[in-house]
Amino acid sequence: VVGAGDTGRGWAALCVAAGWPVVLFDSMGDAANNAPDDVMKRARNLVDLGRANAGELETGMSAFTVGRSLLHATTDATWIIECITEDLITKQKLFENLESVAPKARLVTSSSTALGPKDIAARCRRPDRVLVAHPINPVELIPLVELVPGPGTDSALVELLKGWLRALGRVPVTIRKATPGMVAGRIAAAVWREAIELVLTGVIDVDDLDRAASVGPALSLAAAGPHLTYHLAAGKEGATGHLQRMLVSFERSWSQLAKWEKLEPDQQQRIIQAIQAAYADKTEVLRAARDRRLAATLRAMEQARQG
Amino acid sequence: VVGAGDTGRGWAALCVAAGWPVVLFDSMGDAANNAPDDVMKRARNLVDLGRANAGELETGMSAFTVGRSLLHATTDATWIIECITEDLITKQKLFENLESVAPKARLVTSSSTALGPKDIAARCRRPDRVLVAHPINPVELIPLVELVPGPGTDSALVELLKGWLRALGRVPVTIRKATPGMVAGRIAAAVWREAIELVLTGVIDVDDLDRAASVGPALSLAAAGPHLTYHLAAGKEGATGHLQRMLVSFERSWSQLAKWEKLEPDQQQRIIQAIQAAYADKTEVLRAARDRRLAATLRAMEQARQG
Repeated sequence: VVGAGDTGRGWAALCVAAGWPVVLFDSMGDAANNAPDDVMKRARNLVDLGRANAGELETGMSAFTVGRSLLHATTDATWIIECITEDLITKQKLFENLESVAPKARLVTSSSTALGPKDIAARCRRPDRVLVAHPINPVELIPLVELVPGPGTDSALVELLKGWLRALGRVPVTIRKATPGMVAGRIAAAVWREAIELVLTGVIDVDDLDRAASVGPALSLAAAGPHLTYHLAAGKEGATGHLQRMLVSFERSWSQLAKWEKLEPDQQQRIIQAIQAAYADKTEVLRAARDRRLAATLRAMEQARQG
Repeated sequence: VVGAGDTGRGWAALCVAAGWPVVLFDSMGDAANNAPDDVMKRARNLVDLGRANAGELETGMSAFTVGRSLLHATTDATWIIECITEDLITKQKLFENLESVAPKARLVTSSSTALGPKDIAARCRRPDRVLVAHPINPVELIPLVELVPGPGTDSALVELLKGWLRALGRVPVTIRKATPGMVAGRIAAAVWREAIELVLTGVIDVDDLDRAASVGPALSLAAAGPHLTYHLAAGKEGATGHLQRMLVSFERSWSQLAKWEKLEPDQQQRIIQAIQAAYADKTEVLRAARDRRLAATLRAMEQARQG
């Protein structure tokens, strides 16, 4: 794992908890210095939440090391996960360097949210092993990983990566065109913009909005994505008739949705104040409760899938 | 329950499964004729999914009747749930009629998505017992109920209603201003518009989009609404600094989001075809799997709340 920020620590915690041998490296010594404790804490938390197995965690923890250099960290790696800063030139240089220091790696994946694999691999002579594999925060808990293969990516290696990701309990999906925020980020951005608008226009309070989003649309969507929900609702009426009837109310809502693309400084202050008023002073209790709900929900969905 | 369409059947199934005595009425005889079987099926399904208790279901089923007239259906009711067609004049007439035929009811709630309680109660001399209590489909499964009290609603009666809803396992939230689609509908509309856009622009396939929405943003949001998610992510960095850093990537996503307010006929056809190609021929299997995931997720979230 190259890059020991929040995303890199999440990937490392996930792999350590699965018993995989992880080397974490960060060119900024500072991040790497604090990182091991945090990785261990997050990996252990997966066991506490019933998301990982104590024996595998032990194996992963005893194999975990911090790399002294890029060469030392990656030269024997089978899979290199890049999680460095979101800057194209810096990423291009890193991927170019990896060709000489880590020729044996089967896959080199970028966790980039906004950059495409073609640009990231622009200086590589071997783009076949390069693609974007974008996780969602908290990385070790949310199963989705968005894969963006480039024009030069070897499709057999994409399948290999999917197998590794599934072994880690991840759910890979394929993005056919890189777009800022990918798919999950665009959906989250649409939700959060609307959530800000609804509070700032006085429709609902912060805590009621969060409760509504959680036990309303989020539950529906967790059980079935938007298109499947629509498909199941159409029923015997048939898709076209049902869609036309539904569009009347959807178009009424679409015309109400927030349109702004920037949050002005005074809006930023108002929403921050509203959120602080709702949640400040109980952050750690709320975080533990969120993690419990997330772990319980993940477990329930996996069991329902197998059932 | 006045109105035996999908929403009315859902309310009836929920209350029957809880053992409450329900009278269902619909002025269009047809709907009422098919409705009892469907209510029973949906109520029984709640027991199968572990969402209701077989003994209570028996009690509710033996007490369940179809009303012969509005008077017969409502005159002894404590709570009248209106689920008729979304037409203001029709609703106003019904609420006016209920003042003479059902003077004893403590609460008369409208399931309206788009109309406000002030308009609905415009012809009432007793608006104190009237408010909107808007459920989400499938009504008997999704816990959220959006309450919109009017200027004339008695706040003690709002509290009484919240108690009844909680006894039914519902999660009531307060909407301070009626808006088309309320809060959940606007969030769902924002998600579905983006989901359509992402498929129509070739970013992702229908089934991968649904999978991504489900195991990505929906899981996060089910565990913590958007504002709480942001609050927890801010951590020690502090809200303002974190927001400013996050806004860079959110603004990039916001500028990409779909802006259209109408789905043109050719877009309608394209999205329907894509959805059919993904899901046709497996609808009933997919529906059962969706219900299982939903029930398991609900149970898990309740347990995590208590834990």
